[in-house]
Amino acid sequence: MGDRLYFEDFEVGGCAVHGEKTVSEAEIIAFAREFDPQPIHVDPAAAALSPFGGLIASGVHSCSMMMRLMCDGYMLRSASRGSPGIDEVRYLLPVRPGDVLRVRMTVVDRRRSASRPEMGIVQARHELLNQKDEVVLEMTSKVMMGCRVPEAGA
Amino acid sequence: MGDRLYFEDFEVGGCAVHGEKTVSEAEIIAFAREFDPQPIHVDPAAAALSPFGGLIASGVHSCSMMMRLMCDGYMLRSASRGSPGIDEVRYLLPVRPGDVLRVRMTVVDRRRSASRPEMGIVQARHELLNQKDEVVLEMTSKVMMGCRVPEAGA
Repeated sequence: MGDRLYFEDFEVGGCAVHGEKTVSEAEIIAFAREFDPQPIHVDPAAAALSPFGGLIASGVHSCSMMMRLMCDGYMLRSASRGSPGIDEVRYLLPVRPGDVLRVRMTVVDRRRSASRPEMGIVQARHELLNQKDEVVLEMTSKVMMGCRVPEAGA
Repeated sequence: MGDRLYFEDFEVGGCAVHGEKTVSEAEIIAFAREFDPQPIHVDPAAAALSPFGGLIASGVHSCSMMMRLMCDGYMLRSASRGSPGIDEVRYLLPVRPGDVLRVRMTVVDRRRSASRPEMGIVQARHELLNQKDEVVLEMTSKVMMGCRVPEAGA
């Protein structure tokens, strides 16, 4: 339990970069064939004629790759109890074959649960970065996080 | 092009249900092993001891399955030009092995593009329904959609 992360460890303003993940054309196509078979994601020839000039990853694929970076970066060693949802997912730049992705997590707010003294809510901004340090995708989400020390008399 | 859907075909208040998709335990585990390997999504024994009482699909997996239902339901035969993002993703109920999912799409707003007469923006609410007609996931998104008849003098 030595490096396990609890509510108390997520300080507002705290920021960390995790990863990396290299994206292949085969992965982009395989994911999109199953979940988002639009030509821009599955057909390199059609994609080459599009305004993007080539194959780009599906938005839900990029979200999924970001989730894996979050898991490996901190979530799997945290006291996370899940998320009620996600806000403001913004697709800012395309993700292309060969891109190398990392995730930057910034804590924007946190509060203890009013009803459950053993829990807190951490609000974080997650930005998916490529190898040029460009933000390709951003989103805000809340995570319910167990506390190391339950609130006494709060 | 007979049944191709354009901006003009998405009327505010318009609503349609598309699908269906049956979710298997194997799919839940396979997706989560790649993108969200938290015990609740990959380990049936650990999940059985959790508050959910069993394995549940990763949130990004549910979003991905919804995207596929959207593609097959209307997007692949529409003049969609992509989305700038998603808002208010809410995980309302768990998605479990054996669930049968459909998507309900409701047009909440639309407007012609001010700068590009051949395009419009359709704002839609998408709800993922299970076999009990419960909403398990909802989100709001905007899609840029080509117009059948470009605006003249607007």
